[in-house]
Amino acid sequence: MVYDLIILGAGPAGMTASIYASRYKINHLIFGDRVGGQFVDAHIIGNYPGFTSIDGMTLATNFRRHVESYGVKIREEKVGRLSRLGEALVEGFEVITETGEKFLAKSLLLAMGARHRALNVPGEEHYLGRGVSYCSACDAPLFRNKVVAVIGGGNSAITAAIHLSDYASKVYLIHRRDVFDKADPVWLETLDKKEKIVKIMNTQVKEIFGQAGPNQLPENQIHKESRTKSQELRDNVRGLVLSPLWEGQPTLPVEGVFIEIGLLPALSLANQLGVSCEDTGYIKTAGDLSTNVPGVFAAGDLVRQSDVPQFRQIITSSAQGAISVFSTYAFLRKKSPGPDWG
Amino acid sequence: MVYDLIILGAGPAGMTASIYASRYKINHLIFGDRVGGQFVDAHIIGNYPGFTSIDGMTLATNFRRHVESYGVKIREEKVGRLSRLGEALVEGFEVITETGEKFLAKSLLLAMGARHRALNVPGEEHYLGRGVSYCSACDAPLFRNKVVAVIGGGNSAITAAIHLSDYASKVYLIHRRDVFDKADPVWLETLDKKEKIVKIMNTQVKEIFGQAGPNQLPENQIHKESRTKSQELRDNVRGLVLSPLWEGQPTLPVEGVFIEIGLLPALSLANQLGVSCEDTGYIKTAGDLSTNVPGVFAAGDLVRQSDVPQFRQIITSSAQGAISVFSTYAFLRKKSPGPDWG
Repeated sequence: MVYDLIILGAGPAGMTASIYASRYKINHLIFGDRVGGQFVDAHIIGNYPGFTSIDGMTLATNFRRHVESYGVKIREEKVGRLSRLGEALVEGFEVITETGEKFLAKSLLLAMGARHRALNVPGEEHYLGRGVSYCSACDAPLFRNKVVAVIGGGNSAITAAIHLSDYASKVYLIHRRDVFDKADPVWLETLDKKEKIVKIMNTQVKEIFGQAGPNQLPENQIHKESRTKSQELRDNVRGLVLSPLWEGQPTLPVEGVFIEIGLLPALSLANQLGVSCEDTGYIKTAGDLSTNVPGVFAAGDLVRQSDVPQFRQIITSSAQGAISVFSTYAFLRKKSPGPDWG
Repeated sequence: MVYDLIILGAGPAGMTASIYASRYKINHLIFGDRVGGQFVDAHIIGNYPGFTSIDGMTLATNFRRHVESYGVKIREEKVGRLSRLGEALVEGFEVITETGEKFLAKSLLLAMGARHRALNVPGEEHYLGRGVSYCSACDAPLFRNKVVAVIGGGNSAITAAIHLSDYASKVYLIHRRDVFDKADPVWLETLDKKEKIVKIMNTQVKEIFGQAGPNQLPENQIHKESRTKSQELRDNVRGLVLSPLWEGQPTLPVEGVFIEIGLLPALSLANQLGVSCEDTGYIKTAGDLSTNVPGVFAAGDLVRQSDVPQFRQIITSSAQGAISVFSTYAFLRKKSPGPDWG
């Protein structure tokens, strides 16, 4: 069978798209190995209108219940490959899961979002899960009465520092610039009230090290080792090398490092279809969220429209999910105007 | 005192803007004589992600509680006049309520939404509140076991007909075109299951009449009379004159007429500021929701961006409210970059 639409991604864009597609009677599938997307990690969401304060997991459950109320089941397997089909056979797209299952669709919505950006310093990958984390909401309670560092200067770094200060004995907030100009003032005000948080500005992290001290990781372990294989052999994070030095000390002793320096759009599947990107590295769309490939639409964190501010919120991603379905519906109607559609 | 921002309108755009403005520590006021805006009338909202099904009044209450959680009180008095202030004194805007109170602001958000469009036929104004209604969610229960007509062909007309069929003995759905191509298929499917609803296509309403029959309203009463003055003198709706005639009958007997033919943007205040509109009659904005007047932003139902589909949803209006504040924040920072903002 050929679906009208396959939605890739189950964050706010993909989930809202599914809700709208159901209401538009667009026969569709939705794939997403992480229902809710990035916001699942948020311990408090205060800016999704209608919920004064809700945790990410609960909001994700609400979205899931909403999607499933129309009889749609979210497929949690990973998608491995996308391809365009020749017009001779069937005009459309093939979606192949990592386990090899194949699905056909007349249109696609790319809503795979973005993933955490890495620092790319020695020790970061080596100590992942042994002190290094990209998710303060998940891992904060593991650092009770310990000294931790948060790297970054945006909302996610600042909220991570605030959250960690409920557990850790001390939180260093390390930012490479001299101002927090990408953060909401409401968070900065809270930040200033937290005595446990020490700001280290104009400073970069050069290395994350363990028991042996700085500069002791063998070169080949720095980026390439298999994480699971060497799990038992590794010790835990003991400190950071900063540049410039902080208060003249050669290293900063910490037991946890939370890296919150932004996002990278998940473009590998989009690239397989020949979808064009902006200079910013995000998918280029028209105002109706169509891409350069007819039948392929994009919404949420992997989109960057050149004339719209880059403001990545649950509410804006959801709105894009809705708009993309409105556009997909028009696309499908043009392809097969039947009596059902008037 | 001079506010950083005054928000005009308390629908989803204005309310979301207030939530974001509070989080951004933008000192603001919000005016809105109808909290929730148009969606308050909806008896079921199924397309606001996170709430599988919620009535408009409850969602409006949730939004209000969210806005007020930041200590912001919604001012329900009507605004009568807006003006730009000379740069010599203070650069900004003056907002004057209908009772003459004056407020100053560095920036404005226009989020007054839209109101119901009128048919402009004889009897429409005369019988308003005596059979003629623009709000099925409000008035449907008044028409139990009566015969009613719904005029229009979009989602609001179709959902009105469905809702009315729970009360009325018969519902005529009268549409001037031959298809319902602006309506969601999910509603059309429901529509087809309702045996009480009779569709009359390709047909226009020429007159709404009362006890005396068609063509009996004195000319000067048709559009100009004072509604409240003559309230007691008026009888109730008895029928419609259609063109062409339906089943050869000169009139269609009904006791209620629900007019659901779209919206008109509330532009009178915007016009006082010299805000430019698109050819569509809606306010013209850039992608960041700024208008042609520096410091004036617009969001929600009175905006029409030329390259974005005209898809008016709670979620899209809310997203615009959020984006407008992001842009306002940038505007205010440029005006007065203080140490608070980094």
